[in-house]
Amino acid sequence: MPSNTLGDCFTLSSFGESHGQCIGAIIDGCPAGLRLSEADVQPLLDLRKPGQSIITTQRRETDTVEILSGVFNGFTTGAPISMIIWNKDSDSRSYDDFVSKPRPGHADYTAFSKYGGFNDFRGSGRFSGRLTATIAMGGAVALKILKNYLNIEIISYTKSIGDITMDTADIPFDTLSKNRYLNDVRCPDQDIAMRMRDLILSARREGDSLGGVIECVAQGVPVGLGEPIFESIESEISKGIFSIPAVKGLEFGSGFSGSAMRGSENNDSFSIDKSTGKIITDTNKSGGILGGITDGMPIVFRVAFKPAASIPKPQKTVDLKDMTESQLIVSGRHDPCVVPRAPPVVDSITAIVLLDFCLKSNLVPRVIR
Amino acid sequence: MPSNTLGDCFTLSSFGESHGQCIGAIIDGCPAGLRLSEADVQPLLDLRKPGQSIITTQRRETDTVEILSGVFNGFTTGAPISMIIWNKDSDSRSYDDFVSKPRPGHADYTAFSKYGGFNDFRGSGRFSGRLTATIAMGGAVALKILKNYLNIEIISYTKSIGDITMDTADIPFDTLSKNRYLNDVRCPDQDIAMRMRDLILSARREGDSLGGVIECVAQGVPVGLGEPIFESIESEISKGIFSIPAVKGLEFGSGFSGSAMRGSENNDSFSIDKSTGKIITDTNKSGGILGGITDGMPIVFRVAFKPAASIPKPQKTVDLKDMTESQLIVSGRHDPCVVPRAPPVVDSITAIVLLDFCLKSNLVPRVIR
Amino acid sequence: MPSNTLGDCFTLSSFGESHGQCIGAIIDGCPAGLRLSEADVQPLLDLRKPGQSIITTQRRETDTVEILSGVFNGFTTGAPISMIIWNKDSDSRSYDDFVSKPRPGHADYTAFSKYGGFNDFRGSGRFSGRLTATIAMGGAVALKILKNYLNIEIISYTKSIGDITMDTADIPFDTLSKNRYLNDVRCPDQDIAMRMRDLILSARREGDSLGGVIECVAQGVPVGLGEPIFESIESEISKGIFSIPAVKGLEFGSGFSGSAMRGSENNDSFSIDKSTGKIITDTNKSGGILGGITDGMPIVFRVAFKPAASIPKPQKTVDLKDMTESQLIVSGRHDPCVVPRAPPVVDSITAIVLLDFCLKSNLVPRVIR
Amino acid sequence: MPSNTLGDCFTLSSFGESHGQCIGAIIDGCPAGLRLSEADVQPLLDLRKPGQSIITTQRRETDTVEILSGVFNGFTTGAPISMIIWNKDSDSRSYDDFVSKPRPGHADYTAFSKYGGFNDFRGSGRFSGRLTATIAMGGAVALKILKNYLNIEIISYTKSIGDITMDTADIPFDTLSKNRYLNDVRCPDQDIAMRMRDLILSARREGDSLGGVIECVAQGVPVGLGEPIFESIESEISKGIFSIPAVKGLEFGSGFSGSAMRGSENNDSFSIDKSTGKIITDTNKSGGILGGITDGMPIVFRVAFKPAASIPKPQKTVDLKDMTESQLIVSGRHDPCVVPRAPPVVDSITAIVLLDFCLKSNLVPRVIR
Repeated sequence: MPSNTLGDCFTLSSFGESHGQCIGAIIDGCPAGLRLSEADVQPLLDLRKPGQSIITTQRRETDTVEILSGVFNGFTTGAPISMIIWNKDSDSRSYDDFVSKPRPGHADYTAFSKYGGFNDFRGSGRFSGRLTATIAMGGAVALKILKNYLNIEIISYTKSIGDITMDTADIPFDTLSKNRYLNDVRCPDQDIAMRMRDLILSARREGDSLGGVIECVAQGVPVGLGEPIFESIESEISKGIFSIPAVKGLEFGSGFSGSAMRGSENNDSFSIDKSTGKIITDTNKSGGILGGITDGMPIVFRVAFKPAASIPKPQKTVDLKDMTESQLIVSGRHDPCVVPRAPPVVDSITAIVLLDFCLKSNLVPRVIR
Repeated sequence: MPSNTLGDCFTLSSFGESHGQCIGAIIDGCPAGLRLSEADVQPLLDLRKPGQSIITTQRRETDTVEILSGVFNGFTTGAPISMIIWNKDSDSRSYDDFVSKPRPGHADYTAFSKYGGFNDFRGSGRFSGRLTATIAMGGAVALKILKNYLNIEIISYTKSIGDITMDTADIPFDTLSKNRYLNDVRCPDQDIAMRMRDLILSARREGDSLGGVIECVAQGVPVGLGEPIFESIESEISKGIFSIPAVKGLEFGSGFSGSAMRGSENNDSFSIDKSTGKIITDTNKSGGILGGITDGMPIVFRVAFKPAASIPKPQKTVDLKDMTESQLIVSGRHDPCVVPRAPPVVDSITAIVLLDFCLKSNLVPRVIR
Repeated sequence: MPSNTLGDCFTLSSFGESHGQCIGAIIDGCPAGLRLSEADVQPLLDLRKPGQSIITTQRRETDTVEILSGVFNGFTTGAPISMIIWNKDSDSRSYDDFVSKPRPGHADYTAFSKYGGFNDFRGSGRFSGRLTATIAMGGAVALKILKNYLNIEIISYTKSIGDITMDTADIPFDTLSKNRYLNDVRCPDQDIAMRMRDLILSARREGDSLGGVIECVAQGVPVGLGEPIFESIESEISKGIFSIPAVKGLEFGSGFSGSAMRGSENNDSFSIDKSTGKIITDTNKSGGILGGITDGMPIVFRVAFKPAASIPKPQKTVDLKDMTESQLIVSGRHDPCVVPRAPPVVDSITAIVLLDFCLKSNLVPRVIR
Repeated sequence: MPSNTLGDCFTLSSFGESHGQCIGAIIDGCPAGLRLSEADVQPLLDLRKPGQSIITTQRRETDTVEILSGVFNGFTTGAPISMIIWNKDSDSRSYDDFVSKPRPGHADYTAFSKYGGFNDFRGSGRFSGRLTATIAMGGAVALKILKNYLNIEIISYTKSIGDITMDTADIPFDTLSKNRYLNDVRCPDQDIAMRMRDLILSARREGDSLGGVIECVAQGVPVGLGEPIFESIESEISKGIFSIPAVKGLEFGSGFSGSAMRGSENNDSFSIDKSTGKIITDTNKSGGILGGITDGMPIVFRVAFKPAASIPKPQKTVDLKDMTESQLIVSGRHDPCVVPRAPPVVDSITAIVLLDFCLKSNLVPRVIR
């Protein structure tokens, strides 16, 4: 029941606060014998870290990760792996306002109510997007195991920002993979990325913010992952994905548009792959999942992020001190759009969930050699 | 880790198969002292049961529930409540085909692969929509506690079938609640319901099937339910909802459309409710959830169901016996659209998840009086 | 958190009441492909059932088990296995007394307090030793898998009744195994068994009861089961064993007597087994467990059962109706000593726990062939 | 399933290694609003730390704890509390031997086998008694909540060392509590403590080690804690206690000696306490637990610790490099008897388990004020 832990066999536990001393993660259930060092984790954190470009928050953090336990002589030991990032550039001044005047669209009001005002509100405390770095700590480990030992690759990228959308339907996995990190928007199409970037900058200039959609594709997934009834692949991925701040929607395969199709359109007929002799489907409307269980085709899903809540435009709110209606202008350093920083987090959640299923299906030994 | 169980404090465990002897549920963690009998459960099961109208499968089951344990002298005892429905009208003849020729869009292939052919394939076994009756067993108990002791009401209804959609935005909760069960489509607008009905019948005539969208509203939810980071309200509801067969999408509040808005549009400003003195929001784009925690406004979400997979139109598939491409015509009794039978199931999942959070927040005593 | 479930990967959930309609179990996480029928379960239940001899309660139950789900064509399917026994010979008359006058040493008072009087007190409800039959349902399945697929054998037997103790130190496993069920006391030494039997009958004649000690040996256990820190072999076995009614003590290997030894006496030195080339220990003071992990030697532990609480001798108690001190004479049908019926239950708990660890260590495939 | 975590609602997760950079704990599920600082935790750690007296290991560690997260402005926030101790005085030289020559009675062989040689063997890694400091981190928090908000007090003390035993039967709780820490053996009788001390010193001189028994009493426990069937008080305490290194036995109340009594002797008759009007028992053979549920009397149990495994006397072992029989002389710094350092650990486990049950029974609010 600990709500700060994800996974059953391979678990990620998050701790720390945005403006506290540190943020960190405990990764438990990792097989022994995996070669692991900070160099395996830092690149994923770097893709997520703040202050990388003019379209993100200007908070400057190197987000340098340290592994404190669970690794010995360069290999995992089977013991819990603890990782930590020391917070360096926190500036909590602006948050004093939000204690009594909760930001619309943010967790200030609900956190205050739930924790009786004892929550660490500085930098939004536990509710900050900064905590997704702790998810990436576990994600980096899971991604490495999936890739090296099971040949599973997971890629997420920006599909839309505001009303600008990239059509990804017929683009090969490798192209998406190669191109997704070529720009700071994380969209695999360079031209569309530039337009998205302009849109973000223009929203910021207007004191406003934007949302968007991230698409995720997992390739090389074996047939048979997922446990009916309540631990379907969709159930467990969704549980993880909806823990990312600002996520408000999720669809697999044809998703919402599929709900308006006929069965004859939406069903994926089966074929034999001539080159491998394996069963495949001719289309992938199911997003690689039938009956909650993987069918060997790529898992495909899309995640809707709401526009960032912290905007400098004047907003109507309530003053909790005297319970009067009031106005708020959010100052401080905030992302005008969280989507460009989110792909490593979506990758991480997906990797943790899939590795957990692989462990349940005995696909990974307890000692890797 | 048992995948057939939902919930932490209040748990529902499902057992049984579509064409086995019975289907059943164990409800554990229910407070003692709740007045409970079959009469509290049967009505919800009746709303879901097959053979009710010409738009559903013609399998005839009374779905009469029996409580076998956990209730004494008319009250719950604090012990596990077991409920059972004996299967009466199963006809497994047509399913022999699907063992070797998996239906496109269904779990035949993945279940066969995962369980090495040992799964009970009759009537789709554990993967049948029939198993959602076991969810409703737990749902009926949770709905009663939520309504009687916490004044929380949950209603789901059909929002769209195929390309016909009802605009529910400005319709009061009570109207939706009162009208949703007036027709067999479960759509609160009678005229639209008739058009949906016609569409379903026409799809059936064409040997095809339809999907649709169900909307769910939970009213009376207290502020503060939900546990960051990985047990947000969205996380736990989604985990439950995606365990319903045929669900492929889920969005809270403004959801996917919100991802194309600006922050200034999507943020819900705060106000004081003049009549109650309580904090409310002027709009509800967040779907009643901020930072994964309930804010006291109604929880609102929409669920996308894919078109039913079992259609009589000829489909391309693979013969597993000799690994050749083949054709399949699905016979047997199937729903042309599962959406009309799903609202009680969505209600049930939502109720179980919310009650679980209420128990975690100490809002329900262990002995109800 | 459901307290009626044991295990993580292979789980047993118990339901039902001593004098309700039925008692039953759900076994989840069992691999698919295991040949299973009632004939695999009934023998273990028969060894535990009441009314077998003059030294047990005279309640007459055939304890005939029915498998309701999870088995298809004679093999497990990977779905939850549900089993049920319909109660036949319950006589609840005497229990009305205990509602207001709790029996000393029994759960009447604590159950009444915890459940506000709503608990099913008939036949002690959930607190009856009768519920251990539901444990044996899961135990029978686990024992079969352990024996057939992993060559692990578990035997429990009566080591002492009252002050009569059998010295089992130098008796081979096979002798203990062969002789333990030759008498109704379940003690592998026939002469000592007869003396134990006389002692039980004499205690019954005096309106009194007896306790005793059961010893359990698990042979063929591989090296490496057990998960540090909080899921050591001892931790998980003890959690299970202390859920058996009347158990008040547990020791592994040299146990309490070992705590008075010197390290040089209690340490088990290592050797090479000439015949197998494997590492063994020269003695087994550790009970087959080092650092919470199995070392390949037999697991050995002893379980202390208190004397049965329900005795016809007049006892001092309190009348809960008017909170006065009072007297109670317990009538009804009770075991004068629960120890002779407990070995199948100790076997079952041990088997469930060990199989759970074997699954965590990938020693059992998800599909058995 | 993470084996490094104890508890369901209030959880303690342990990380770190004996000779790694640090050891630490994450405490999750702690109510918000608890005044907490390092000063609440350090005293318990000081009672456990090494190098305090000549009867313990001479490793010198200040064991200075730092709280890294979860506390803000002096109060808990409801977020995970992370604590850390940086290791200072580790000397791993002697442990190189044990990699190939496992110490009899220690985890060297089983850890090597389980983790394929990847485990951090320095200072016994995760299997070191040093890790019990991480248990005490959570224990200190739990003990404070139990004492301040529920008036529950838990005390453990040394009852026997080797063959010297203190009779604690008729000694009042307050005397035991006051006297238990007056000497470095942690035995509440000063004279017996001196004899125990001499015995330990003499065993050390002889290159040998001792075990012993710790008794624990919890006073002020409310009626009704414990969840049947598999989460009885005994089950959960035992699961925790058997995770302490060197524990091989546990008995509640009359325990093993009770198993040789008659029911009429062992049953605790009920009375009305004249001063409070509450129900009590005249004796406490049950150790405060009936049917797995607390009855309001003090919880009493005893824990058997085996003699410490690491002794300098020459011992027979096996050389894993060439699989030959060999000899080992254990050098390095080790406790000749772990019992004197264990009472804070037994207190901690007991406190964590009892607080967890209190949370499940709604006895502690989610926000303490």
